[in-house]
Amino acid sequence: MKALIAVLPGDGIGPEVVEQGTRLLKAVAERFSHSFELVEAPMGGAAIDLTGSPLPPETLALCQRADAVLLGAVGGPKWDPPAKVRPEQGLLALRKELGLFANLRPVTPVPSLYDTSTLKPEVLRGVDLLVVRELTGGIYFGEKRREEDRAFDACVYTVDEVVRVVRAAASLARARRKRLTSVDKANVLETSRLWRSVTERIVREEFPDIELKHMLVDACAMHLIKRPADFDVIVTENMFGDILTDEAAMLSGSIGMLPSASLGANRRGLYEPIHGSAPDIAGRGVANPYGTLLSVAMLLRHSLGLEQEARAVEAAVASSLDAGVLTADLSAPSTRPAGTREVGRSVINRL
Amino acid sequence: MKALIAVLPGDGIGPEVVEQGTRLLKAVAERFSHSFELVEAPMGGAAIDLTGSPLPPETLALCQRADAVLLGAVGGPKWDPPAKVRPEQGLLALRKELGLFANLRPVTPVPSLYDTSTLKPEVLRGVDLLVVRELTGGIYFGEKRREEDRAFDACVYTVDEVVRVVRAAASLARARRKRLTSVDKANVLETSRLWRSVTERIVREEFPDIELKHMLVDACAMHLIKRPADFDVIVTENMFGDILTDEAAMLSGSIGMLPSASLGANRRGLYEPIHGSAPDIAGRGVANPYGTLLSVAMLLRHSLGLEQEARAVEAAVASSLDAGVLTADLSAPSTRPAGTREVGRSVINRL
Ligand SMILES: CC(C)[C@H](C(=O)O)[C@@H](O)C(=O)O
Ligand SMILES: CC(C)[C@H](C(=O)O)[C@@H](O)C(=O)O
Repeated sequence: MKALIAVLPGDGIGPEVVEQGTRLLKAVAERFSHSFELVEAPMGGAAIDLTGSPLPPETLALCQRADAVLLGAVGGPKWDPPAKVRPEQGLLALRKELGLFANLRPVTPVPSLYDTSTLKPEVLRGVDLLVVRELTGGIYFGEKRREEDRAFDACVYTVDEVVRVVRAAASLARARRKRLTSVDKANVLETSRLWRSVTERIVREEFPDIELKHMLVDACAMHLIKRPADFDVIVTENMFGDILTDEAAMLSGSIGMLPSASLGANRRGLYEPIHGSAPDIAGRGVANPYGTLLSVAMLLRHSLGLEQEARAVEAAVASSLDAGVLTADLSAPSTRPAGTREVGRSVINRL
Repeated sequence: MKALIAVLPGDGIGPEVVEQGTRLLKAVAERFSHSFELVEAPMGGAAIDLTGSPLPPETLALCQRADAVLLGAVGGPKWDPPAKVRPEQGLLALRKELGLFANLRPVTPVPSLYDTSTLKPEVLRGVDLLVVRELTGGIYFGEKRREEDRAFDACVYTVDEVVRVVRAAASLARARRKRLTSVDKANVLETSRLWRSVTERIVREEFPDIELKHMLVDACAMHLIKRPADFDVIVTENMFGDILTDEAAMLSGSIGMLPSASLGANRRGLYEPIHGSAPDIAGRGVANPYGTLLSVAMLLRHSLGLEQEARAVEAAVASSLDAGVLTADLSAPSTRPAGTREVGRSVINRL
């Protein structure tokens, strides 16, 4: 098949990990006889430095034309508040403009990395969870105001916004273990009470085969550490999802392992590792690219419909991990860690 | 000394654990020759059933008159949304009415419970952290609205609200390891940017001896699991504090272990275990009262200024844990767990 893929390296370690992602995409194209056109564009802090805007119109136009977007990471101390124009604004605008309301963050710790996690192996056994985070609503996109001596952020959710992300999550649960945990703070927030009642109705009416449970966000933050294997699919609002997925990332040993997909009403999606720009280790060739490589697998699956290719990538990653090809964040202090390029090469060779 | 202590058993396991707390208070009074007047009042769901209100005026008046308040827990399925009058409203109103803006939640895992935690012992070694959660502002108390097809919650912070809780946290850090981590989401929220700049200024001007670090809430959710021993004092806004403290509770093996103090401008404080009402195990005499007993220690220290007595309670708790007097949430499946009363007796005997 032919596909146009927008490649946004971004900031910090973004360019390094994305380089391995594009090499992998090219290898998949060759191996499975596809034709992927990869077009790079500036985004985030890099784009601010170049054009003054974290999401230049050309970059947005490219993404809108593309079948999928592969992103590295954005942000860094150089553009931190109090700077008025910031890299994250580009990412938030991109999510919004592309209508990417469902952010999928799977967490499936692999046995060969159990040692790397700070959790006990018996807790990690059987963990296979997927967080579906609402991505274009809530307090991220509500009105913001600053007055002399106070600040204000509005958290808003509409019924439609809840409906579509709950539908996405429930459909995903249907193809898995059929259990959905909806996370909110209904004992305090009005938006959470709306969230809970809409979720209740949609699952009852459209997904009677799915077992639905509601959980308060504080309880969920606890259960993710206590009994993570209990979860199948978790669906939650934007801010709670941001916090819970970084927490859940620790189950897999390193945040460097985790991929993500951001999906909307059509097939176009944005794929990015969840680790962020890690300015402290940028440019040294030591960043963990596994999260990006697994994001490529999600891209192949969700935007291009190439399930077989996605599995081949996932198998190559698993085999590379089993072989002990581990970056510094994953390896014991006594062993020689693999570099970013070495991991890329290892996965491509195993494809 | 003489002191009036309001006792609010509340719902679920609240009455059972509070019973041990009041027994302990009486034992302390006897042993150290104090005169504590303990007065019980209804609160939460129990108060709704009795009076229609989760915080009856008589209960509030008692708390306002008291030197300290000991609370069990509130809430339960019986009064869950869509119920319009709910137990939590009583707790939120009590915090607000008493002006309890600083919620202290210490987490210090004890070696004899390392086995109980799902985290590896080497990660728990040296953990001694204190979360100071802002308790009367933010999205908890902002305007709430529900329209036909949308819901709205406002998150508001004023400079003064940030100043006072940061001052409280920095003062506490000064008596500890002098490190303060302020947690926000300044890359997205206007309230967080206010939070960050005010924190920066207060610490620079008034606490130059304190080392201040800012951390994003998602990164903090991660670091709490990855390197919890790095933290000394964490200060954060209401909702983030709610989530992060339940997560941090997992370091100590069981949420049943954790005490809390809610303080305001004067010495009066509210003391409660952070575990909640646990309706599933209520009335069976198996609930873990250690969090309540440790809350009594905080009460003695912060509201009554009885440091020696507080330490005696903490030492008795530590000795009881070392002796293996463990409730079901703490003990290995193979051993006979201690009941709620047995733990109370064990701690009092060791006083
Ligand atoms: C960079 C930031 C705005 C972003 C978010 O909070 O959504 C990031 O933390 C993420 O999770 O993708
Ligand atoms: C019961 C609920 C309103 C409360 C809160 O969210 O503050 C509880 O979770 C807590 O942490 O004390």
